[in-house]
Amino acid sequence: MNFQDLKDEVCEEIRDALTNVDEQNLKKLIDLILSTEKVFVVGVGRVMLVMQAFAKRLKHLGIDVHVVGEIVEPPITAHDILIVGSGSGETMISVNMAKLAQRFRAKVGLITSSHKSTLRKLADVSVVIPCPTKFHLPDEPISKQPMGNLFEQSLFILCDCLTIMLQEKLSIAGEKMWETHANLE
Amino acid sequence: MNFQDLKDEVCEEIRDALTNVDEQNLKKLIDLILSTEKVFVVGVGRVMLVMQAFAKRLKHLGIDVHVVGEIVEPPITAHDILIVGSGSGETMISVNMAKLAQRFRAKVGLITSSHKSTLRKLADVSVVIPCPTKFHLPDEPISKQPMGNLFEQSLFILCDCLTIMLQEKLSIAGEKMWETHANLE
Amino acid sequence: MNFQDLKDEVCEEIRDALTNVDEQNLKKLIDLILSTEKVFVVGVGRVMLVMQAFAKRLKHLGIDVHVVGEIVEPPITAHDILIVGSGSGETMISVNMAKLAQRFRAKVGLITSSHKSTLRKLADVSVVIPCPTKFHLPDEPISKQPMGNLFEQSLFILCDCLTIMLQEKLSIAGEKMWETHANLE
Amino acid sequence: MNFQDLKDEVCEEIRDALTNVDEQNLKKLIDLILSTEKVFVVGVGRVMLVMQAFAKRLKHLGIDVHVVGEIVEPPITAHDILIVGSGSGETMISVNMAKLAQRFRAKVGLITSSHKSTLRKLADVSVVIPCPTKFHLPDEPISKQPMGNLFEQSLFILCDCLTIMLQEKLSIAGEKMWETHANLE
Repeated sequence: MNFQDLKDEVCEEIRDALTNVDEQNLKKLIDLILSTEKVFVVGVGRVMLVMQAFAKRLKHLGIDVHVVGEIVEPPITAHDILIVGSGSGETMISVNMAKLAQRFRAKVGLITSSHKSTLRKLADVSVVIPCPTKFHLPDEPISKQPMGNLFEQSLFILCDCLTIMLQEKLSIAGEKMWETHANLE
Repeated sequence: MNFQDLKDEVCEEIRDALTNVDEQNLKKLIDLILSTEKVFVVGVGRVMLVMQAFAKRLKHLGIDVHVVGEIVEPPITAHDILIVGSGSGETMISVNMAKLAQRFRAKVGLITSSHKSTLRKLADVSVVIPCPTKFHLPDEPISKQPMGNLFEQSLFILCDCLTIMLQEKLSIAGEKMWETHANLE
Repeated sequence: MNFQDLKDEVCEEIRDALTNVDEQNLKKLIDLILSTEKVFVVGVGRVMLVMQAFAKRLKHLGIDVHVVGEIVEPPITAHDILIVGSGSGETMISVNMAKLAQRFRAKVGLITSSHKSTLRKLADVSVVIPCPTKFHLPDEPISKQPMGNLFEQSLFILCDCLTIMLQEKLSIAGEKMWETHANLE
Repeated sequence: MNFQDLKDEVCEEIRDALTNVDEQNLKKLIDLILSTEKVFVVGVGRVMLVMQAFAKRLKHLGIDVHVVGEIVEPPITAHDILIVGSGSGETMISVNMAKLAQRFRAKVGLITSSHKSTLRKLADVSVVIPCPTKFHLPDEPISKQPMGNLFEQSLFILCDCLTIMLQEKLSIAGEKMWETHANLE
């Protein structure tokens, strides 16, 4: 398959997946982010990488954000939110972290691809991007891509859209964001 | 702006950017990846995160791939390739790594958004995704998104397409890729 | 307190802690490392950092070693060993990883400071460095240092000694180790 | 060689190396840490791992500390200090970071094993732990250990001593430090 056709298919798959995202839940997640003191993000594998990319932009907006497992990670408190990225909603480490966060009475936000899961039951707010998960169910959408590609790509774009929506709400100019950017690189 | 309109715009920007990618250079990069012993990837900030996501998929295809800076990183040799992701093509650390790699006579591949740069001059093969860079030039494409978003999103999708093209060339089934996936998570 | 007196006390504490290490268990761990295909290391916080430093040296000896959570981590199999560093022997993530490793029939090695723990019960071989843990038991040794310092320092030195013992067994010259060292730095 | 004799030799080497550390320079470094707003740490390889372990303890003392390259790294300013760990004082990335930090008018602190180096010339304050470096000079101390082991071990212990000296100055109880410890683990 040539690249041009392939990239069209992939972009189409992402757009289709994101079309099914519930706008109200997304707004609830934005409200939670804006009403808490600190934001923590977690995930596993490529999903963790996308959550880290999300954290980097939240930081650029002046939000006090942390990646679970980072060297200088502060404790989570009742005034904070943990945002979990998990396609299946069953990733062991992420489930454990969500339970721990709730033990400290923090809020839990979830971005996932499955409608029913352990994390879905735990979360205070969930945003569902309907994508095929590891083991297809008969009624699940189909992707031509391998593994969790479609969820990870859609998550990346959803998080970047979420940042732009936050940027608008906070009235922060794009050039302003460079000022909070790391300069030792 | 609501999410649905925003995601349409973002998907459109990505598709436009990727439409301008030269298919021949992409094929040269694929050939280099398949003809070398080890693949190393490097980048900075969110671009590094995307390059890591790319490395994870190359690993799933059974390619001996390494992230520059990883704990158990082997030395690069004349039989290897370093693939650099850099929007501007001027990122200090990446330029230094490319020069170092060439001192050990490794090949250098580049995925970038600018047509002219220090890295462009160094690289054995470059794939250009034309996107606005930090400091707009009059003839550069415009993005409504802040910072390097458009390049990073397009890079993510281009790398995933590249993986699928490699998967096809190597005749590896999607389910087969799970077998090389980390199981301690 | 001045630095010179302090460093004498700290060095003395480390030496005392290491004096109580059972040489037979250490040798069993070395034998396991040499008889397996791949070595995985895991830990949490500063202990993880020390385990990563250990992994770096094992790599220099030509051992196929991986850090749990690294980007290009391969799957663990029945021919491999997971070495866990855990002061208390109860660290949630490490306990979960040890159980997972055993589900794939890998061996589990433990370096810890407590004689009784969940991980101690699971492990195929344990090396105990008796140090005070977070919650002192009446009969535990006392350290003047805060938090897990003494365990982490002793772990660092024990792992470096272990590497030297392996180096001797494998008859690898010190200069030879530079050849497997990363050169992109 | 058996473990007990080996650990005695290693502990002796560390103590000897640290005996030659100049207490006045250490105090200057402590004063700089206490008089700046943010502390950044950097290093390469195992030295970076030790600097990260150092950062973790500084954080426990309530100091606003960051690891260069961390996901949510803020910009460095004229009110901050970059502490570089570098055995040779010539590590490319660290030299570049020190120069960058000075361009933003931040202070640069150095912990090193060589008396003369590029970083030594740049730094506002340097603490020297005399240890053999990669290429022995005739008048350099000798270590029985491979590679940079002795410097890395001594650096680990020196940084932990430094934290204890800071803890005393700031009158922070050991138990108090657990309160700023990450709880999502």
